[in-house]
Amino acid sequence: MFLKTLNDLVNIACNKGIMKLVVAVAQDDDVLKAVKYARQAHIIEPTLIGDKSEIKASADLAELDLSEIEIIHETDQSVACNKAVKLVRSEKTAILMKGLVSSSTLFKAILNKDFGLLKGTLLSHIALFESPYYYKIFCVTDAALNVAPDINEKKDIIINAVTAFHKLGNPLPKVGVLAAVEIVNPKIEATIHASLLKEMYRNKQINGCIIDGPFALDIAISREAAEHKGIVSEVAGDADIMLAPDLNSGNILYKSLNFLGGAISAAIVLGATAPVVLTSRADSDKSKFLSIALASVMK
Amino acid sequence: MFLKTLNDLVNIACNKGIMKLVVAVAQDDDVLKAVKYARQAHIIEPTLIGDKSEIKASADLAELDLSEIEIIHETDQSVACNKAVKLVRSEKTAILMKGLVSSSTLFKAILNKDFGLLKGTLLSHIALFESPYYYKIFCVTDAALNVAPDINEKKDIIINAVTAFHKLGNPLPKVGVLAAVEIVNPKIEATIHASLLKEMYRNKQINGCIIDGPFALDIAISREAAEHKGIVSEVAGDADIMLAPDLNSGNILYKSLNFLGGAISAAIVLGATAPVVLTSRADSDKSKFLSIALASVMK
Repeated sequence: MFLKTLNDLVNIACNKGIMKLVVAVAQDDDVLKAVKYARQAHIIEPTLIGDKSEIKASADLAELDLSEIEIIHETDQSVACNKAVKLVRSEKTAILMKGLVSSSTLFKAILNKDFGLLKGTLLSHIALFESPYYYKIFCVTDAALNVAPDINEKKDIIINAVTAFHKLGNPLPKVGVLAAVEIVNPKIEATIHASLLKEMYRNKQINGCIIDGPFALDIAISREAAEHKGIVSEVAGDADIMLAPDLNSGNILYKSLNFLGGAISAAIVLGATAPVVLTSRADSDKSKFLSIALASVMK
Repeated sequence: MFLKTLNDLVNIACNKGIMKLVVAVAQDDDVLKAVKYARQAHIIEPTLIGDKSEIKASADLAELDLSEIEIIHETDQSVACNKAVKLVRSEKTAILMKGLVSSSTLFKAILNKDFGLLKGTLLSHIALFESPYYYKIFCVTDAALNVAPDINEKKDIIINAVTAFHKLGNPLPKVGVLAAVEIVNPKIEATIHASLLKEMYRNKQINGCIIDGPFALDIAISREAAEHKGIVSEVAGDADIMLAPDLNSGNILYKSLNFLGGAISAAIVLGATAPVVLTSRADSDKSKFLSIALASVMK
């Protein structure tokens, strides 16, 4: 059974048992607030890596009781990220979370060939959304990592999202490949990609899902819009996974849903040996908490 | 005084007096329904060009009384578009609307050097939105015409939108140049464009507005998000015009607001000698009607 609401993630995560959440450069009160909620929900037990006195100050602001929480003191940000990554690598049930550090510093550690979290697959960002304007939970990818994915990268982005849907109980998610139009237009590369991805799906190069497109967004999520345009497709009006043309469009869609769409979201990075929680400052507390829950479920 | 709601467009259009609305290939019941509402609101008097018997059938479906409406019978779509464009060109108070014909056929007529509607400026699409999640009417451009605008085209797209805001009573609209991030990243062309457009604004190459960016969408429309990220800008959190990186992202934002954001919209093409109403099948009746009102106000 697939999720009905994003809160279901919390129940599923609870039932899986407590994970270790390693926070790299943990002196961030917003992050520690989400850590507090996730700990209270019995999803995770944190290990905080960073500047100990700053972590204590942030924990005070977040009202997180540190008395039973492991803190590894490290003032150098790169070293803190390296330590966090090594710790996640050494533990079977650990997930990683970004604190007050740039994504590039953290990813340098994740991508390290000797002690990083690579497993040979592309890293990509998935965001699950619960919107008052769509009848089910859906996913937007990639809104945060891959700037201008080529056709092979898009294939891997789809596979990461599809794998996540399988884990969440949907064995055959419908993937809508987004663009501005529904026909192949050589001037719009996303429409060419869509056509090729569909072909790869037909040739069983991508499995465990149904792929169709190119679709303008309305065609992917509104049966009425699809019917108006005479588009007959299993995916049209019923997409689970929206593949964005590129980072700009994925990020704009992500922000539009969160800031101009009344949606709530949970987002993580997949493709490493452990899920990475990579929330941004502007994400709500709830979204950060749900992202930790999603990471726990994905591990 | 700027618009408080998109319905204000109807009052402004009424006060301007009745325009002639020329519909090219008019046998489309959705379009004729919007024409009926706009006529009832005393905004326009239509001239319908197309297949007369099909127009009659569509008018029956739309419950549009044709008894006092001029119909020009023409079964050939290209010729109908040419006639529509010529008629709009010959009348001081005429606006053009697309019926049951492809945009490319209509634009071939609009762009004709002998009898078209060119005035030497770039054609671009603007969409005004009223969203339950933003405190004022705002604009997204370009969601329909320019596939991958270069820096000069983006300048012209901004100028078209700014001119529209001036006409609507906002003498100094704030333009947020959208991308996925807030810093210049050479791998993301939209961030380079944003930086250059800002520079053109500082050098007074673009006037009558305030330009800032690159902004992720949340920074453009949420003061809280901007403060969280420490961004100090007159435009951040208060943008009137959102310049999309390209057609894909503009179209996805447009569709997200309409289909996953509870917004209503009015959209037209600017840059020709007359505004062009270019609604898509999936747009609501209300949106089509408001688009006619917007075109009347812009003429």
